Amino acid sequence: MIAITNIAELVVVPPGPIGGRAMGHVSTIEGATLLIDDDGCIGRFGAASSVDVPKSAEVIDAGGGCMLPGLVDCHTHTVFAGTREDEFVKRLEGKTYAQIAEEGGGIKATVEAVRKASVEELIELALPRLQRMLSYGVTTVEIKSGYGLTSADELKMLAVVKRLGELTPVELVASYLAAHTIPHEFAGRADAYLDEVLAPEVLQRIRDENLAEFADVFCERTAFDLTQARRYLETCKSAGLTPRVHADQITQMGASRLAAEVGASSADHLETIDDASVNALREAGTVAVLLPACSLYLGVEQAPARRLLEADLPVAVATDFNPGSCMIESLPLTMAVACTQMGMTPTEVVVAATANAAAVLGRQDRVGAIAEGKQADLVILDMPSHTRWFYAFGRECVAAVIKGGRIVHRCDGH
Amino acid sequence: MIAITNIAELVVVPPGPIGGRAMGHVSTIEGATLLIDDDGCIGRFGAASSVDVPKSAEVIDAGGGCMLPGLVDCHTHTVFAGTREDEFVKRLEGKTYAQIAEEGGGIKATVEAVRKASVEELIELALPRLQRMLSYGVTTVEIKSGYGLTSADELKMLAVVKRLGELTPVELVASYLAAHTIPHEFAGRADAYLDEVLAPEVLQRIRDENLAEFADVFCERTAFDLTQARRYLETCKSAGLTPRVHADQITQMGASRLAAEVGASSADHLETIDDASVNALREAGTVAVLLPACSLYLGVEQAPARRLLEADLPVAVATDFNPGSCMIESLPLTMAVACTQMGMTPTEVVVAATANAAAVLGRQDRVGAIAEGKQADLVILDMPSHTRWFYAFGRECVAAVIKGGRIVHRCDGH
Repeated sequence: MIAITNIAELVVVPPGPIGGRAMGHVSTIEGATLLIDDDGCIGRFGAASSVDVPKSAEVIDAGGGCMLPGLVDCHTHTVFAGTREDEFVKRLEGKTYAQIAEEGGGIKATVEAVRKASVEELIELALPRLQRMLSYGVTTVEIKSGYGLTSADELKMLAVVKRLGELTPVELVASYLAAHTIPHEFAGRADAYLDEVLAPEVLQRIRDENLAEFADVFCERTAFDLTQARRYLETCKSAGLTPRVHADQITQMGASRLAAEVGASSADHLETIDDASVNALREAGTVAVLLPACSLYLGVEQAPARRLLEADLPVAVATDFNPGSCMIESLPLTMAVACTQMGMTPTEVVVAATANAAAVLGRQDRVGAIAEGKQADLVILDMPSHTRWFYAFGRECVAAVIKGGRIVHRCDGH
Repeated sequence: MIAITNIAELVVVPPGPIGGRAMGHVSTIEGATLLIDDDGCIGRFGAASSVDVPKSAEVIDAGGGCMLPGLVDCHTHTVFAGTREDEFVKRLEGKTYAQIAEEGGGIKATVEAVRKASVEELIELALPRLQRMLSYGVTTVEIKSGYGLTSADELKMLAVVKRLGELTPVELVASYLAAHTIPHEFAGRADAYLDEVLAPEVLQRIRDENLAEFADVFCERTAFDLTQARRYLETCKSAGLTPRVHADQITQMGASRLAAEVGASSADHLETIDDASVNALREAGTVAVLLPACSLYLGVEQAPARRLLEADLPVAVATDFNPGSCMIESLPLTMAVACTQMGMTPTEVVVAATANAAAVLGRQDRVGAIAEGKQADLVILDMPSHTRWFYAFGRECVAAVIKGGRIVHRCDGH
């Protein structure tokens, strides 16, 4: 048994999904103690005076820091090769995405680099990213495929995620995003491309080797239309993958209504969401995943977070870490951006990046919450409150990270 | 002699001030070596093949990283006490600054905390902030008074800055910002307040004890008007302090034109600057200091950076780190914000936070540049180019920091 003592503030996030109106109201315990059972699960916790620490317990002193559930980054593209810093500069110099794509940039550049890279190279590139994420307090990370765009290369990316999960303490969740964009070999023939990546033997292999839990599609004017997206998601769903949708980012074409219809666990982006879609998501119980770092990185309008919260939708926040539109890999930085750029409060963003993000990944019964019997995935800050974490926008404040009851990261201090 | 070898990219920033149109055009040397003389100044540098490394030299391997001048943060309020995270939350919940001030928040809260704090307490609070700034690659930091708002407490703040300068490798520059706001004891009697803080014995003491180099004023509808600001700056100028102005932040009232008229080294903020003011600054040779992290933190419109650059004004970028409107203490993070939110390029922001920031502080002859004979203030990144630093928005990438030829910080790696 482990006893964590001297916790200035324990943020008692309940299991998700939590509707938007309740997200800002989470109880906290000042001066807390929390016990971790030998099976790595949360045991008793409460005010120090109310929790007996067994003599046999190993004591971890939280040093007067705040403790909260380990963060869950439920939307990332962490496996990739190559760098697109030139494109970053071109965009700042005023070039459009179309011009950049014509010059060989854009997602095409990443696809080429990923196709060329071996499994080992992709692992070597991704591991330090995951190590940094862990140092920011992130204990569960979803990673999408989507830069292979052939059935073989998509399977390669999923194999990389599986292998990475054995190499890092971070819990990884894979999504099959073969429908990320239409590869240039299939320009104008999206359905023929879908024939390839939805081939029964491909989906069978994903199932047999347990390569993914989710299927994701980029539903957008420049990618897949509603009919194609529905076909992709329903076919994947019959093969056991839970649907998710990149929806309403640039064009309002009903993509989040599709997410609701196919029973997706989330609709992600939502910069252009309309009222009918808000209602559809609420009725379907689909979580709204917001990606504020992406909008910041691109210098574009943010999704209407407050409108979604007031509509009582469960809202999650994720990084969207990827080499093109968002090289921000820090979920705490993203959460601070959600505060200042979307008007979410610190408590709301904590719920968004723990309980509700866990619900997106179907793990709400196990992670993302402080409750007896849940897995002890915990972050200890070198700050006395979660509010101060986001007030100190961008400052790295994680003192220690615990995954399944085991300390997996300690900060040496700055 | 020290030889820094294996520099993937040496960003040869020339001494400032550099006009906006030239800021994006700085030469770089790939595969460089740089020598540091025994007096801590930059010696010969160039492509590795062109620089002989003496056998007696101590070799520092840059590890294939990029090297650039140590960063200069030319606008901060790093000395303060107390925390205003409650105010941060209230603002997100929709309260106005006026409402927050009525509830005892706003700058008043910081002033009360600073007045109560001893010199020792203020030093203890500021030192870790400076240590973190150093870890971000910042080797010179300006710090303003302005939370004392009595002559005694303003002098106390300046004494804190002076003492801090002896305790940190970071080079500190003090500004006398007694005219930060009108303290509540003098509500409606700004001139009587100025009588106190401009008293000859106060200015004499600043001079005798070398407590400040600059005088700064917040010229704004809610603070000091043009006449009061002029009086403050001209009186301070006769006492040997170089003027600077918090100008055009919320209200366009001609504050940056005043800066030009009194020969200020900088006009800072400039969110509401008009064309006449742009011309006035250019003619006066006054540097435009932009504070993009502050606008981000407050969720308000950014200053028109590209307009100022196209007008060929020398532009600097600084954090504005302070406990109310900008708790962002990282200058590299601020520079990344200047890229994505203001459309500045990575090269422009490097010049803005080195050569031009040094010019604001009257140190362009010594720091902020890579040139023979300049002080060896240098940053080595764990990335091969300065472009990638900002592309990887918010990621801490500093491998080592050198001040006056001496390694003052090494990163242990993430």
